Amino acid sequence: MTPTACLLIIGNEILSGRTQDANIRFIATGLAQAGISLEEVRVIPDRARRIIDTVVTCRAQFDHVFTTGGIGPTHDDITAACVAEAIGVPLEIHAETYAKLEAYLGKEKFNKARQRMAWLPRGAIPIENSVSIAPGFTIANVHVMAGVPSIMQSMFNALLPTLKGGAPLCSVAWHADLREGTLAEGLELIQHDFPELDLGSYPFERPDGRKGVSLVAKGYEQDKVAEAGARIYALIDSLGVTPVEGEPAP
Amino acid sequence: MTPTACLLIIGNEILSGRTQDANIRFIATGLAQAGISLEEVRVIPDRARRIIDTVVTCRAQFDHVFTTGGIGPTHDDITAACVAEAIGVPLEIHAETYAKLEAYLGKEKFNKARQRMAWLPRGAIPIENSVSIAPGFTIANVHVMAGVPSIMQSMFNALLPTLKGGAPLCSVAWHADLREGTLAEGLELIQHDFPELDLGSYPFERPDGRKGVSLVAKGYEQDKVAEAGARIYALIDSLGVTPVEGEPAP
Repeated sequence: MTPTACLLIIGNEILSGRTQDANIRFIATGLAQAGISLEEVRVIPDRARRIIDTVVTCRAQFDHVFTTGGIGPTHDDITAACVAEAIGVPLEIHAETYAKLEAYLGKEKFNKARQRMAWLPRGAIPIENSVSIAPGFTIANVHVMAGVPSIMQSMFNALLPTLKGGAPLCSVAWHADLREGTLAEGLELIQHDFPELDLGSYPFERPDGRKGVSLVAKGYEQDKVAEAGARIYALIDSLGVTPVEGEPAP
Repeated sequence: MTPTACLLIIGNEILSGRTQDANIRFIATGLAQAGISLEEVRVIPDRARRIIDTVVTCRAQFDHVFTTGGIGPTHDDITAACVAEAIGVPLEIHAETYAKLEAYLGKEKFNKARQRMAWLPRGAIPIENSVSIAPGFTIANVHVMAGVPSIMQSMFNALLPTLKGGAPLCSVAWHADLREGTLAEGLELIQHDFPELDLGSYPFERPDGRKGVSLVAKGYEQDKVAEAGARIYALIDSLGVTPVEGEPAP
């Protein structure tokens, strides 16, 4: 069975429109390749009650919960404390992390605010941060990472090989200068024959204004994906247009 | 009181990593300006049970629910049917929309697949689509829009003036070449004095590698935001660095 996952983006800055999200796609792509099915993403504010309730709900519903944001040195960095409360363990100084941060920053710079980054839920396993040392952590099925994209990526790359996934998500795509309304009935027939796959239809517009559509088949069974791909090819071809493999260049 | 909102992004293509989200920030910014507080975003797959349950949950919890995706002509465009079921009304042909689409597309092109776009929940009010005619719709507190960014934007711009918001979200920002760990204790004191505002600290890195931080105060009371801004200025200044107004150029 493919394990399931939920991603929680913790940050007022996404909800206010200040910041364009730059983490969802990176994590989604990595999980798909690792054979872990990302089933939901939630963006929630830096408010303790909301974080705790959402972690409790989502970790019961999915095999893994990944979080980004809220683990720095400032007052609104409350993710570690909220995850500790959601799991039901105390937050405490993680001696190894404390020593590592003190050595990296120097005693003088390692002030009270920065010491917050050494407090982890009891029993947490640190996730290495090769960019700025302060780690993320895993506790139970919750994986807590930074929100700054370069740091999140460093943590995610360290974490991912430790997780057990299923077969990777496979996909095949064909595109053509046709409109999706023309292909829709044929595509529905193919979806009907491959209930275990997700068949998607994505309209696009080229820089010169010509419109087209990409048809994509996705799933965890490689041979089924290939069969569905052949059916998609035949569908486009039957409408008198030569299908082009893959998706159009952006 | 500021009305609250939740945004549902309906689409496997975001969860699989195929597509970079290009809708959250546009909607978040528009809602903030209109004085509607975006409290949560959820990205969910094109699966009927998930869509129905999420709409039922979120429309009870927030004043408004906005959705994007799943209202085109293909088999995976099931948002209208799911919203009808979540609200408890039948899905039926919307005569005016049917006539408009038929006139726009011509009888021959207006096939069974494209006719799906004229089925709306009973009682729905169409949201105009100036790009490709097939409308979104509002029913009760649920606002259903397309997923293609240009079409979503057309619908959102038509919809927003019809919604009653509170005062717009105000913000003030100062940045400096300091690290957030140095400012964190002072910032926490300011947050303590302005519990009604969100104070955020956002590290950045310039193209030449120099690191800095933006401090941002946000809220719905303009005078409080201005006062907090003055305190942020004084905090950075007290550390011997001249604050620069606004956020750094990306």
